[in-house]
Amino acid sequence: VRFNCAQCEILGELSPGRVLVHNAMLFFTEFDHHALAADLDVMAWDSYPLGALENFWFDAATQQRWLRTGHPDFAAFHHDLYRGMSQQPFWVMEQQPGPVNWGAWNPAPAPGMVRLWTWEAFAHGADVVSYFRWRQAPFAQEQMHAGLQTPDRHFDIGADEARAVAQELHSIPAPAPATQRARVALVFDYESLWAMQIQPQGVDENPLRVAFDAYSGLRSLGLDVDIVGPNADLADYALIVMPAQAIVGEPLLRELLATKAQLLLYPRTGAKTASLCIPEGLPPGPLRALIDLRVTRVESLRPTARVPFTWQGERYDAERWREFVQAGPQVSVEACFDDGGPAMLRQGRTRYVTARGDAAFERRLLEAAAREAGLAATRLPEGLRLRRRGDLLFAINYGEVAQTVLVPQAQWLVGCEAVPAHGVAIARRHTAE
Amino acid sequence: VRFNCAQCEILGELSPGRVLVHNAMLFFTEFDHHALAADLDVMAWDSYPLGALENFWFDAATQQRWLRTGHPDFAAFHHDLYRGMSQQPFWVMEQQPGPVNWGAWNPAPAPGMVRLWTWEAFAHGADVVSYFRWRQAPFAQEQMHAGLQTPDRHFDIGADEARAVAQELHSIPAPAPATQRARVALVFDYESLWAMQIQPQGVDENPLRVAFDAYSGLRSLGLDVDIVGPNADLADYALIVMPAQAIVGEPLLRELLATKAQLLLYPRTGAKTASLCIPEGLPPGPLRALIDLRVTRVESLRPTARVPFTWQGERYDAERWREFVQAGPQVSVEACFDDGGPAMLRQGRTRYVTARGDAAFERRLLEAAAREAGLAATRLPEGLRLRRRGDLLFAINYGEVAQTVLVPQAQWLVGCEAVPAHGVAIARRHTAE
Amino acid sequence: VRFNCAQCEILGELSPGRVLVHNAMLFFTEFDHHALAADLDVMAWDSYPLGALENFWFDAATQQRWLRTGHPDFAAFHHDLYRGMSQQPFWVMEQQPGPVNWGAWNPAPAPGMVRLWTWEAFAHGADVVSYFRWRQAPFAQEQMHAGLQTPDRHFDIGADEARAVAQELHSIPAPAPATQRARVALVFDYESLWAMQIQPQGVDENPLRVAFDAYSGLRSLGLDVDIVGPNADLADYALIVMPAQAIVGEPLLRELLATKAQLLLYPRTGAKTASLCIPEGLPPGPLRALIDLRVTRVESLRPTARVPFTWQGERYDAERWREFVQAGPQVSVEACFDDGGPAMLRQGRTRYVTARGDAAFERRLLEAAAREAGLAATRLPEGLRLRRRGDLLFAINYGEVAQTVLVPQAQWLVGCEAVPAHGVAIARRHTAE
Repeated sequence: VRFNCAQCEILGELSPGRVLVHNAMLFFTEFDHHALAADLDVMAWDSYPLGALENFWFDAATQQRWLRTGHPDFAAFHHDLYRGMSQQPFWVMEQQPGPVNWGAWNPAPAPGMVRLWTWEAFAHGADVVSYFRWRQAPFAQEQMHAGLQTPDRHFDIGADEARAVAQELHSIPAPAPATQRARVALVFDYESLWAMQIQPQGVDENPLRVAFDAYSGLRSLGLDVDIVGPNADLADYALIVMPAQAIVGEPLLRELLATKAQLLLYPRTGAKTASLCIPEGLPPGPLRALIDLRVTRVESLRPTARVPFTWQGERYDAERWREFVQAGPQVSVEACFDDGGPAMLRQGRTRYVTARGDAAFERRLLEAAAREAGLAATRLPEGLRLRRRGDLLFAINYGEVAQTVLVPQAQWLVGCEAVPAHGVAIARRHTAE
Repeated sequence: VRFNCAQCEILGELSPGRVLVHNAMLFFTEFDHHALAADLDVMAWDSYPLGALENFWFDAATQQRWLRTGHPDFAAFHHDLYRGMSQQPFWVMEQQPGPVNWGAWNPAPAPGMVRLWTWEAFAHGADVVSYFRWRQAPFAQEQMHAGLQTPDRHFDIGADEARAVAQELHSIPAPAPATQRARVALVFDYESLWAMQIQPQGVDENPLRVAFDAYSGLRSLGLDVDIVGPNADLADYALIVMPAQAIVGEPLLRELLATKAQLLLYPRTGAKTASLCIPEGLPPGPLRALIDLRVTRVESLRPTARVPFTWQGERYDAERWREFVQAGPQVSVEACFDDGGPAMLRQGRTRYVTARGDAAFERRLLEAAAREAGLAATRLPEGLRLRRRGDLLFAINYGEVAQTVLVPQAQWLVGCEAVPAHGVAIARRHTAE
Repeated sequence: VRFNCAQCEILGELSPGRVLVHNAMLFFTEFDHHALAADLDVMAWDSYPLGALENFWFDAATQQRWLRTGHPDFAAFHHDLYRGMSQQPFWVMEQQPGPVNWGAWNPAPAPGMVRLWTWEAFAHGADVVSYFRWRQAPFAQEQMHAGLQTPDRHFDIGADEARAVAQELHSIPAPAPATQRARVALVFDYESLWAMQIQPQGVDENPLRVAFDAYSGLRSLGLDVDIVGPNADLADYALIVMPAQAIVGEPLLRELLATKAQLLLYPRTGAKTASLCIPEGLPPGPLRALIDLRVTRVESLRPTARVPFTWQGERYDAERWREFVQAGPQVSVEACFDDGGPAMLRQGRTRYVTARGDAAFERRLLEAAAREAGLAATRLPEGLRLRRRGDLLFAINYGEVAQTVLVPQAQWLVGCEAVPAHGVAIARRHTAE
């Protein structure tokens, strides 16, 4: 990061008037990207949805389900993450145009996906989408990585789809409306991830995955999400989710105390100090000012283990992680394990979850949190995603069946309310949501 | 071991009147513990039943079954092993008081388990049970390892249970009766393990596991077991089991020739000389003086392979290992493979098994051997274990349902004949068994 | 290979009149064996059917199915491979005589297999079958590797079976008839394998396995196969199969242009130049002279993925690999994916397959190719294999049930038309096939 800063100074001086941009990677947490982006004009990233699906934590069923599309929240997660730290609108520096060569397996994208991925980037606020690469090289170690052209200089499928977007861009207003702040903030902090990765406590504990799953859950409810760093201004959000915030520093604490948003704290929130210790008075450390509890014990669990709990009459299971807590009298227990331990607690607008719940619980939890924050949360059909940019509404369909998106008083600029499989439609909304 | 000897001499001189003690590890065979213990006053060990379950050879179903208790024979195996080499009553130097931090996963013990593990150690002859650690450290690499106190200096669950045992100790006679010799000896020898580990012949061949399984089988029949080294005095035992005794040296041979006990030899017994060769005249080498056979060939088998055999009209399967033998005329074939090869042979009081049998066979084999040795062997309910110390009988219930233990003319000192889940009961017996 | 050449020169000078022989390994491709063999008189190899089955790519069901026999095409594949490069009749330098010590597991051969393997080697043209080893060593790292004798100098099962073959050899004509050229050639080229292994594109892509499976499919149709190098004379073959021929050099191209044989090209044929580049005009490179198509894109697929296609009204699945092609007007599409892409194309006598098909497709494809080449192809019962040498017909039964082999006007020299499980029968044929 210091090296980056020095580079930026030199380049800024010698190359005045040009934007300083650097491309980040996917699912990569080994340096503090917020610090890096602070020195740049534009944060960019490299979007390889199919390779990412094959090479990370997704289970075999998920990998098979989205084989030729990538996970429906993969690209969006990174768009929102890097938009949240970029001084000017972010870029996609490298967009996958066909099969790559570095995945465990390298399937071809479904027809339409290069167009979909490109439009999706613009929906999330991208200023530029660039493809890697222009022409597939016939030599060396990347010769099996597709380009817009085949090695014999003919345009391939990806080129046709990129050209289609270039045409369709004339259908939407220019310049495109600015990306407004979302109502939901997801706090994402590299130092917190490191604190949890250094001492994971269970071999499959993966805080990045936890954050991604929370993001994915919010998106599948049709919500726009800002992914923000630990020093972000949190005023005006309706809902703040902290899926992996082990360290709660002074700036974040101040914002959390000041905000009127609903707060949703996942297990391990506030579990570490900045110097990787258990905080005074036990976790959640400084957040005990918001919710008066002590996490006295945690356990990690093998994938086959389940710890059942009850919330509003429904049964769920804790998986992989459970915490044991003692709570003060102002704290109400919302969900309870069969052994009497709390599974979820609330004090005022702050909710703390002690279990990594099963998929049904995660969905229901985010839904409840969104509704309590006054947000319209609807479960979207599998693979459908919505994203707003100014008065534009983008409907993006990762699924294999067409979906109907009803938008009252909408003017469809690209496509229409029947969004085809692997397709995109764009409407101008005439009413505020 | 020489270093240990030198240390002991220095400490003995400079610290007279104090016991010399060292703590050994769990499922650890990389040095000859019998040689180490010979220099010490007290052999101690570190008991982590949950971590051991997660990190060793147990299959996923077993790991799930005993997730919060550890395997019912894990602690007892080590108690009996280290008792068998300790000059004075052995210690538990570190007893797990809650979740640890080094397992693949680190579940919390079921309520009651710290009390159970503590009583179980005393049942097997421990003089001391010490907990690791007093207080959970809020810093550094062990900060997720539970202690008797939480990092904020409050007593945790383990402390309450340790305190309960301290109270209950007043209910049993002081000093506690000495641990008498059991009727069953299991011979355990580090050099033999090494000989089999160096040339395992099958990737999953694990002689330590074979020894543990034999011990577990004997214990689930309600038997007390002494685990003894290769130089032990074997007189007075009724049954001697050798699950993993590749090397039969002079002292052991002498004892085996002299004893009147039933002898049970597992595959690979006597298969190597002390210099890791196949013995003259083929395995079982010097034991051919007791049972006249030649092991001409062995095969190891992938886990899916089965080789059926018949014993007393019942069908069993060899798994993972089978030997081909030629036997002299005094040897009778007790069980036979379908291809005509012997699966079990007997000459006088010596029985040799050529197959690693399935679970049903192992159980039945140990049961038959115990009965032929004149021992009362009863299959205990799953998770229940019994252990005698002087005239005290300990009933230890690792299971999740209560078990009734009927002891004629018993006086219950702790608990009663209905032993609760994860509970302990202690009776004084007024009749000899 | 240069070192081998120098050695051969020295030995040839100092040891005149003796054959120069070297033993190669099983499933081993790390040097160019054709180049090595060119300097030798005799190419030999070491045949360990059971260890090979345990330690290579075979799935668990296959490993269990042929546990005590080895795969029915394992030894034959290597016999035909090394015969194809040996100046004089090849040797088996080391034949497995019992359980070995280096497999993941080391089962014992089924009774009869040492005899079967020995006869099979002669059926494929071997001049010598030698066993490793004479006596099982009672010491050192190979002490668990069986020999013809046990360590105590008694003959073991393998010795009895070798002796049986020695007796039975008197029943067939001496000298044995020469091995004539087969009608089917399978081209096998080490440089092509390396090109595909260096950039496999899918983690489980294994061109050696592809070649072996093609060979196995041909053999299970009762066909004799010559495995030939990239510089072989291909005249007179009726069918030439290229399962893994990434590189098509000048000599091979010349032969392919000249031959009148049916040509069967698998995916990746001609996909690389000798300097590991994508060829001008895209794959299949120079073979576009025979079939006018461009492979514009390839994809590798995880094992769960299937891409269905149709051939002559039947449905099949592509597995692991699919290519996208554009074809010229003289090319006819024989099989088609559901998305319209060709799965198999033909121009004249040349067929190109774009998919790694499922097992049913592979079988049917080879059957069709053989019939179009005018060869009598019949699906043999599982485990039965036939092999001709001069006017001798060898029937070799790897299966566990007897098989009847009807040969008109045959004179049975060893056994008869009812070939027992794990047995061999040899007939003299009086009619040309």
